[in-house]
Amino acid sequence: MSLTPTRADKFSFGLWTIGYNGSDPFGGPTRSHLDVVEAVTRLSELGAYGLTFHDDDLFDFDSTDAQRQTQIDRLKGALADTGLIVPMVTTNLFSAPVFKDGGFTSNDRQVRRFALRKVLRNIDLAAELGAKTFVMWGGREGAEYDAAKDIRSALERYREAVNLLGDYVTDKGYDIRFAIEPKPNEPRGDILLPTVGHAMAFIQTLERPELVGVNPEVGHEQMAGLNFAAGIAQALYQGKLYHIDLNGQRGIKYDQDLVFGHGDLYNAFALVDLLENGSPEGGPVYDGPRHFDYKPSRTEDITGVWDSAAANMRTYLLLKERAAAFRADPEVQQALAASRVPELAQPTLNPGETYTELLADRSAYEDFDPTPYFDGKGFGFVRLNQLALEHLTGAR
Amino acid sequence: MSLTPTRADKFSFGLWTIGYNGSDPFGGPTRSHLDVVEAVTRLSELGAYGLTFHDDDLFDFDSTDAQRQTQIDRLKGALADTGLIVPMVTTNLFSAPVFKDGGFTSNDRQVRRFALRKVLRNIDLAAELGAKTFVMWGGREGAEYDAAKDIRSALERYREAVNLLGDYVTDKGYDIRFAIEPKPNEPRGDILLPTVGHAMAFIQTLERPELVGVNPEVGHEQMAGLNFAAGIAQALYQGKLYHIDLNGQRGIKYDQDLVFGHGDLYNAFALVDLLENGSPEGGPVYDGPRHFDYKPSRTEDITGVWDSAAANMRTYLLLKERAAAFRADPEVQQALAASRVPELAQPTLNPGETYTELLADRSAYEDFDPTPYFDGKGFGFVRLNQLALEHLTGAR
Amino acid sequence: MSLTPTRADKFSFGLWTIGYNGSDPFGGPTRSHLDVVEAVTRLSELGAYGLTFHDDDLFDFDSTDAQRQTQIDRLKGALADTGLIVPMVTTNLFSAPVFKDGGFTSNDRQVRRFALRKVLRNIDLAAELGAKTFVMWGGREGAEYDAAKDIRSALERYREAVNLLGDYVTDKGYDIRFAIEPKPNEPRGDILLPTVGHAMAFIQTLERPELVGVNPEVGHEQMAGLNFAAGIAQALYQGKLYHIDLNGQRGIKYDQDLVFGHGDLYNAFALVDLLENGSPEGGPVYDGPRHFDYKPSRTEDITGVWDSAAANMRTYLLLKERAAAFRADPEVQQALAASRVPELAQPTLNPGETYTELLADRSAYEDFDPTPYFDGKGFGFVRLNQLALEHLTGAR
Amino acid sequence: MSLTPTRADKFSFGLWTIGYNGSDPFGGPTRSHLDVVEAVTRLSELGAYGLTFHDDDLFDFDSTDAQRQTQIDRLKGALADTGLIVPMVTTNLFSAPVFKDGGFTSNDRQVRRFALRKVLRNIDLAAELGAKTFVMWGGREGAEYDAAKDIRSALERYREAVNLLGDYVTDKGYDIRFAIEPKPNEPRGDILLPTVGHAMAFIQTLERPELVGVNPEVGHEQMAGLNFAAGIAQALYQGKLYHIDLNGQRGIKYDQDLVFGHGDLYNAFALVDLLENGSPEGGPVYDGPRHFDYKPSRTEDITGVWDSAAANMRTYLLLKERAAAFRADPEVQQALAASRVPELAQPTLNPGETYTELLADRSAYEDFDPTPYFDGKGFGFVRLNQLALEHLTGAR
Repeated sequence: MSLTPTRADKFSFGLWTIGYNGSDPFGGPTRSHLDVVEAVTRLSELGAYGLTFHDDDLFDFDSTDAQRQTQIDRLKGALADTGLIVPMVTTNLFSAPVFKDGGFTSNDRQVRRFALRKVLRNIDLAAELGAKTFVMWGGREGAEYDAAKDIRSALERYREAVNLLGDYVTDKGYDIRFAIEPKPNEPRGDILLPTVGHAMAFIQTLERPELVGVNPEVGHEQMAGLNFAAGIAQALYQGKLYHIDLNGQRGIKYDQDLVFGHGDLYNAFALVDLLENGSPEGGPVYDGPRHFDYKPSRTEDITGVWDSAAANMRTYLLLKERAAAFRADPEVQQALAASRVPELAQPTLNPGETYTELLADRSAYEDFDPTPYFDGKGFGFVRLNQLALEHLTGAR
Repeated sequence: MSLTPTRADKFSFGLWTIGYNGSDPFGGPTRSHLDVVEAVTRLSELGAYGLTFHDDDLFDFDSTDAQRQTQIDRLKGALADTGLIVPMVTTNLFSAPVFKDGGFTSNDRQVRRFALRKVLRNIDLAAELGAKTFVMWGGREGAEYDAAKDIRSALERYREAVNLLGDYVTDKGYDIRFAIEPKPNEPRGDILLPTVGHAMAFIQTLERPELVGVNPEVGHEQMAGLNFAAGIAQALYQGKLYHIDLNGQRGIKYDQDLVFGHGDLYNAFALVDLLENGSPEGGPVYDGPRHFDYKPSRTEDITGVWDSAAANMRTYLLLKERAAAFRADPEVQQALAASRVPELAQPTLNPGETYTELLADRSAYEDFDPTPYFDGKGFGFVRLNQLALEHLTGAR
Repeated sequence: MSLTPTRADKFSFGLWTIGYNGSDPFGGPTRSHLDVVEAVTRLSELGAYGLTFHDDDLFDFDSTDAQRQTQIDRLKGALADTGLIVPMVTTNLFSAPVFKDGGFTSNDRQVRRFALRKVLRNIDLAAELGAKTFVMWGGREGAEYDAAKDIRSALERYREAVNLLGDYVTDKGYDIRFAIEPKPNEPRGDILLPTVGHAMAFIQTLERPELVGVNPEVGHEQMAGLNFAAGIAQALYQGKLYHIDLNGQRGIKYDQDLVFGHGDLYNAFALVDLLENGSPEGGPVYDGPRHFDYKPSRTEDITGVWDSAAANMRTYLLLKERAAAFRADPEVQQALAASRVPELAQPTLNPGETYTELLADRSAYEDFDPTPYFDGKGFGFVRLNQLALEHLTGAR
Repeated sequence: MSLTPTRADKFSFGLWTIGYNGSDPFGGPTRSHLDVVEAVTRLSELGAYGLTFHDDDLFDFDSTDAQRQTQIDRLKGALADTGLIVPMVTTNLFSAPVFKDGGFTSNDRQVRRFALRKVLRNIDLAAELGAKTFVMWGGREGAEYDAAKDIRSALERYREAVNLLGDYVTDKGYDIRFAIEPKPNEPRGDILLPTVGHAMAFIQTLERPELVGVNPEVGHEQMAGLNFAAGIAQALYQGKLYHIDLNGQRGIKYDQDLVFGHGDLYNAFALVDLLENGSPEGGPVYDGPRHFDYKPSRTEDITGVWDSAAANMRTYLLLKERAAAFRADPEVQQALAASRVPELAQPTLNPGETYTELLADRSAYEDFDPTPYFDGKGFGFVRLNQLALEHLTGAR
């Protein structure tokens, strides 16, 4: 295995990531604007296969049609020159003042209509560029104060919006699926659909649920203290992992958007193992883009920007290598068996068994002796985790 | 309105709540066992309408059938004497050593079969006592280490279990619905179905989703930093609020199980307003039990136990009173309108409108001027929240 | 008592608070620049007594001397016209790109020297304006990565800087004390001196510790899950509460800077009670400025800005009223006694007692019976908290 | 370097760690009592050098003098047989009902006197066993409710207690120092002296501050979202790191007490590097016990207990190896220099320079050009962290 990325690795980057100018709540930019052509060229050289963007990343919110087209053409030229693709497009409904209370769920109906139009226009662009996934991060869909937002109406408006978009791509024949990106808070005090779970629950209420999945981001789930790999496993289980945002976060705090792996290293290892190798017993893996949604730290100049872009891919490949070795180690296989991890893939019921047979099985209850679980029948989970640690640290 | 609870208020308590003996990770009991008859009698005097319990609360895990029956009979006698009911029953799959890796999703298949049998037996008891809701808190269904649990298999086993239980109550003709209680962590490092969202998403995968809803607990969602009232609003929106656990929590830390309202007071106010009055524009309210799942602090003796039980109900009624006044205040109504909160209940599309008409509406995009949202068109949310604060503090 | 603020209430506001333009990590400004003269005039009308500022709030980072002087003169004029004072000044060492790795503790020595000069210049201005407190918030003094910052050297450089500033104000005869403002993170991944405790510990290492205290901010301590009122009590106990920043925060997340009281309402109540009334048994109160360091939400226009400014003061006064009633209530006094709260003010040792007498006192150990603390000797803390809740909500 | 522990590594374990019976807030024991002789024998075989304990770990709270002495003698025998030592002793003031509101700061004065006597008796035992450090974890010194505890009086009582203990060991001529162990919460809602910073600040108020330092625990600081290695660096800077508790924690949640390194792996790496190698520029290292305060997971049987004990030591040694390689790597040294990390060890002022010379140095301000920090002068911190990651994962 090599730590040098190739297009087959399907690494993609948001234009807003490498293009982040360093501004934050307590300081302005430390870097100037990154041109899209330079972005595409450098990403291509580094081994990425895709670029993604919000409309407003490529052309200003208040661009004229001509300015917009110029930028689109410049992007297309760069893609043609490099062979990079645009696997995903998304719409900015959160930066401009008009969206200060959100887009699809702003209390202001005129804003909601404007937001829908902005998205429809951008879907056409996504289709034109061949993007297969359209991400929706509703970062401003939320509130700071409980009385300020009628959550049920907000969900109903969100639903109305996504239903309309589903009609649109269906009628147009676009080969595009939607992916909702959850986040618990920031920039709003509380954001609608705060976790992977809430988003997947909501999707079931849609008219075309099959068109809509999730785009979980490492840091967003970890900002709620949730186990990211476990959330991804549920998304895979429910067939809803349509896209993924990789980055790093160090605990429950503001959204850090660090380089992938520069946060909770164990969970990054578990995640790569899951995406690449599936469940311990196999099971479907993820074959979409490995999309980095991170920010080069504000302390860096352009050299640090490209170093950090490369670090994302290198770390992913390194963890992939470690995960493969973990899986292949006979001692790990033995430890997994001792921990009875594979036994969980076995149905609890016998083939054809219903509650009737289960109730008649005295060995399951009347004759079952729970006492050996005291002072015995240990699961050996600590040993298993130590093996994971030693593989992760390259010590085995 | 009165602050004295009556049965019409539908207040219920877990036997394990008032019966909590004070033991915690760093100390043993400070109070002795509370007998179920005393519990029922005192709750009745205080104005509650219901008692709930885990099987192991009423009779020991290793009770003989005779011991078990004695306790059931004593409970029935107390219910008959007082008129209290048992609106909900739940099963303990987390305390005994046999469940150290969980019940429905233990890696150990024998344990899973035993767990199913323990639940089936307890469902019969629930039906016998007339309970309408059967809660499932899978507190041990989880892991400390990522490699220790195959999450997809765990979800599949959970699904297998709940499907079987659904068959059972259906075939038996029991008038019982299930409610899954999410929790992010503690006592496991990460728990399966960690939030209301994850649980509702999972429910969609079941064979009888209509039989299963959620039982959210204030503190559990707040342990993930999530807005509890917002989560309840989504559960109501999706028709899945089958039961509720009220208590108090002061931020992201261990599960505190304080008295209801002794945590995030704003969110408690918003919650009571939502449960009692529905959305700002109306909409369905919750009419199930107001169930307190709290722990009298370890510092308290039996006097403090009953004081704390009474405090839960009194605080709920006080917040109900405050919420009614908030709704009735013309200044609040005016502020809500100014904040355009009711406007969110209005569909974004005109009657009959599809994307075709929307795309043709130049006022929605081409002629829409977003510039007035800079330095204007403020939403007035801070003023609205200040009105909420002043009602909550009885200052208006 | 009145809810209308007067100058005697000593309410002050940062120019950057009411002047916050609404920009955040995911969006630009929603409001234009607020002129300092308008700020002073409006604050005066609302009943505040003071304005505070960072140098860069009043004049741009790259101002010429003339531009700087113009702004100073305009401020002085407004102060003269209104009678407002400037009780505190602070220096911005965090916004400009030059400070991207901090000011006093930047790895770059040239930056550290520049930072010192910027602060010295601003201290002269503070003295000229009669400010008695000079706040130091080292928001950029920190790191995202453990290897990036030698913490011990950073503390040594911080110490070197503050020692020099102490020499300066002493030699100049300025009547100014310094107040360090702790914060755990944001905008850096981890910030130096992350809590009130760390700052107070550091102060002891200085050459002139008596010149330096702390300026705790409600939200900053709560971002670490710490009890703000308890931290303030320790600062008062150690004689180090030189200034205070009041605002609101809803749990462990990004720095929200909500209106005071729009966060953890219980803790706000306890804080005002402590500041105004001291310990339960009395003890020194705080008599410095009640300084609001908050941000009017990005959703608001200028009307919302002034509404929110007023809300801070009104909420403080409301809580002061509630705290006074709490203290005056005989039932509260009785409950405090029953909870033995006043008994904690009594020394554990008898007058003149040393360990010799204590060891000889058989009633303290050999004859002391700990068993009544099981099932008895409850502290009644839940009842006490319920009384606090009922006073806070105006229900008594 | 070897991953096999020896006594020279100074690894010690609490008797309560390997002896943890698995009980937690939602379940009883899963393992039986571990005898102290077995504990000492096995620890010795595994390569530890020390055992530590609370009085109540060794003999029951209500032991007779004879029972107590028997256990002390058994411990002494085991120490003599194995050569293990007791580097630290501590007193349990948190488990028994009598301490339900704390020990030194219980509202109940009789309890406070009893607590002091219990500690004095245990100090004699510590001295008898040759322990050099006496740890004080005040886990019950705190409150759930703001009105329940007069924090200033609590600090004054804490101070009174520690002053008396200081007199005692001084007069007795004991070679013992005290180490306060901070924790933010659990089992109390908020604990007194919640962080390393608060404890160090408090120590300055004591009569004999030189006798008292801190005993920080990895998980306790991380429960407040604080950077543990940074806290340790401050403790070392202030000469107060008298002892240390190593374990693992996965973010802000209940106290997990995982194996060292099974939590935040980056911070564990940075910590070991700091303890073993000092600051980047050198500086004092820590030479006391490497004390593990962890809990073998409740899922484990006795095999898992000893596996987990061994895992702590092995992980520490592995990280020590990785840290040595990190320091020795010329590319790391070059990257540190490029990031100007060593430059922070250089004083900001020139030798002999005061503010007078600094003010006269035009190159520091008037002629200093801050503009190159925009789009230039990047610090290269991301590259540096990537090098740390690659060393940590054994990839270089």
